[in-house]
Amino acid sequence: MDYNGFFRDRLEDLRKEGNYRIFAELERRAGNFPRAKQYREDGEAEVTVWCSNDYLGMGQHPVVLQAMHEALDHCGAGAGGTRNISGTNHYHVLLERELADLHGKEAALLFTSGYVSNWASLSTLAARIPGCVVFSDEGNHASMIEGIRHSRAEKRIWKHNDPEDLDRQLSEYPKETPKLVAFESVYSMDGDIAPIAEICDVADKHGAMTYLDEVHAVGLYGPRGGGIAEREGLMDRLTVIEGTLGKAFGVVGGYITGTRELCDFVRSFASGFIFTTALPPAVAAGAIASIRHLKQSSIERERHQRVVAKVRRKLDAIGIPYLPNPSHIVPVMVKDPVKCRWISDWLMDHHGIYVQPINYPTVPKGTERLRITPSPIHTDADIDKLVSALNELWSECALARAVA
Amino acid sequence: MDYNGFFRDRLEDLRKEGNYRIFAELERRAGNFPRAKQYREDGEAEVTVWCSNDYLGMGQHPVVLQAMHEALDHCGAGAGGTRNISGTNHYHVLLERELADLHGKEAALLFTSGYVSNWASLSTLAARIPGCVVFSDEGNHASMIEGIRHSRAEKRIWKHNDPEDLDRQLSEYPKETPKLVAFESVYSMDGDIAPIAEICDVADKHGAMTYLDEVHAVGLYGPRGGGIAEREGLMDRLTVIEGTLGKAFGVVGGYITGTRELCDFVRSFASGFIFTTALPPAVAAGAIASIRHLKQSSIERERHQRVVAKVRRKLDAIGIPYLPNPSHIVPVMVKDPVKCRWISDWLMDHHGIYVQPINYPTVPKGTERLRITPSPIHTDADIDKLVSALNELWSECALARAVA
Repeated sequence: MDYNGFFRDRLEDLRKEGNYRIFAELERRAGNFPRAKQYREDGEAEVTVWCSNDYLGMGQHPVVLQAMHEALDHCGAGAGGTRNISGTNHYHVLLERELADLHGKEAALLFTSGYVSNWASLSTLAARIPGCVVFSDEGNHASMIEGIRHSRAEKRIWKHNDPEDLDRQLSEYPKETPKLVAFESVYSMDGDIAPIAEICDVADKHGAMTYLDEVHAVGLYGPRGGGIAEREGLMDRLTVIEGTLGKAFGVVGGYITGTRELCDFVRSFASGFIFTTALPPAVAAGAIASIRHLKQSSIERERHQRVVAKVRRKLDAIGIPYLPNPSHIVPVMVKDPVKCRWISDWLMDHHGIYVQPINYPTVPKGTERLRITPSPIHTDADIDKLVSALNELWSECALARAVA
Repeated sequence: MDYNGFFRDRLEDLRKEGNYRIFAELERRAGNFPRAKQYREDGEAEVTVWCSNDYLGMGQHPVVLQAMHEALDHCGAGAGGTRNISGTNHYHVLLERELADLHGKEAALLFTSGYVSNWASLSTLAARIPGCVVFSDEGNHASMIEGIRHSRAEKRIWKHNDPEDLDRQLSEYPKETPKLVAFESVYSMDGDIAPIAEICDVADKHGAMTYLDEVHAVGLYGPRGGGIAEREGLMDRLTVIEGTLGKAFGVVGGYITGTRELCDFVRSFASGFIFTTALPPAVAAGAIASIRHLKQSSIERERHQRVVAKVRRKLDAIGIPYLPNPSHIVPVMVKDPVKCRWISDWLMDHHGIYVQPINYPTVPKGTERLRITPSPIHTDADIDKLVSALNELWSECALARAVA
């Protein structure tokens, strides 16, 4: 078989349908976010990033960088091993305590990424609990889907954010059947938020565990940045709260929190936890600093929400339609991968504005969008520039405006 | 169902069979490796680490730390997004070029860990090539096994390091059936090395791709640290060479190298690559510095081999048996999880020597061992201390000696 030819053909298919991905090569500048240098074939340019998941700009916060510099000098670059074989650093232990405290849980367990935390935890729980049935929201992230799939446990998909459908499906199983309800708080691409209380009610009624992914909420919501469940006083109702250190906390890594036994169980059986080098101590140190800062400072969260509201108001004023939602994500729907890429390129080339086109497989085909993520470090001038560029674009291309 | 009770019972099972894992909580000290501070319930102690996978001590090398400090100041803490959505940093691109060059390949693709690089690449290749059959060495690492399993492709296990058995199994399939032969160069727990040339011969004969995991070899073997395949002049015979930045290179992360089309294919379709935050720029910068250093410096590799040989010679002199192999890993077989833990604790408590007991699931039950990893930064005094401690232990406990 001509393997390379096969790969080439599949890539050509992607190109034809407009789904071939071109990564923007950037160099964010600490102290100067959301500005970044862009490396292009024809040279370099300065751009303003409007699509980062470093939602609060914590990746440039002095307390985070300071903690990382210190840990680097103190402990060196890498952890030097898996958690079991010489790789558990003091910072990992402190970070797990910090995370357990953040979510009001007994324990936490660190993973190399949010993806791995979902994949490894869900696959381990679902595979190791005999007869476990997983009830997965149809909007769940790829990492959850792959984890559940990997477990080979029976899986039921329930309608997105629909506790009634969940209830119906749960009631098809006897109470004693082990069950795991997996969902997210903030869904990253539409920005909608789950009815956590109702889902927990339904889960409780049927004796199901609940697994909540808060990766797009931790640091951003709740008085201490514990996420939507914290904001709504529901943290104790979730069996597992999963989160990331790579978005609002500005670093990298993922985790789960739960009972001591649950975390110890995943620690003891999850292949994706056991057989991997631990996170660098400096990463853990940076995450600790970021979490501690956001536990006691709400300025970033408040300003974040104000900037999000302002972007929406200004888009409304000129009739640029976006998907309404109660979170911080502003999806401007384009619904065509080629157009979406074209708009993104135009913004970059003409205005130095970087909003990555979001296409398949990140969103379903036909729902391509520009996903704008305002942050507390975007200035009024940044907002004006973004909105006026979009306005120009909408006029020149006669794109549809929202009816006022 | 009483979920927490279930977890508790399974953990109790592990305790009973001696397989419950207790992580040593350490703080390695940059500039003072292999020394580390150990946090214990009763206080702190200084220990010498003899089981790190930071095989060359590059995790404390000034060029690595300097590069990380600079990138941290320059680009901040995290990458701020997935590779596709604002997370591709200039350092990632430079690192991928450096890795392609290291292995003489057209392209490279970075992952958040070696585990994820194996899991995501193997599962994507095997699942996406219609009818692909995977031929997996029976000694392959968990990350490869899970990746192959996740693909749901047909899988054949061949006898460890046995090209004849591989040949037999490959010949059961028509030449046109797509095939992928997956194996490692240095097997981490036994330290044995694959007959790469013979395996490639057999694979070529049957039209199979070859996927070689060099995680325990990159940086350590070959004139530029390209691994066993480089040492043996075989890099061009492998379809994929996979490696890690978290062992000899001293940082964290994983990668594959191969043709431009293969890397682009995995980049475009692998869930575990697409849906995860990119590595921090500082991690990529540290890895670049480490790889560049080890491409032009062989001092670390030479001293590494000398220290390994010296440890073996001294163990021979006092008759401490270890598994012979042609690599840098010195497995002292204990074959009982409880004894293995006891010996490890004794070394730690009485001599400040840290060698983690290796138990199930890292090795099969009944093959528990102390896995000693000498490094160029272990001094003669360190070696003498280790050997004399083992000698004392073997005498006091009347453990079996090797016959001279």
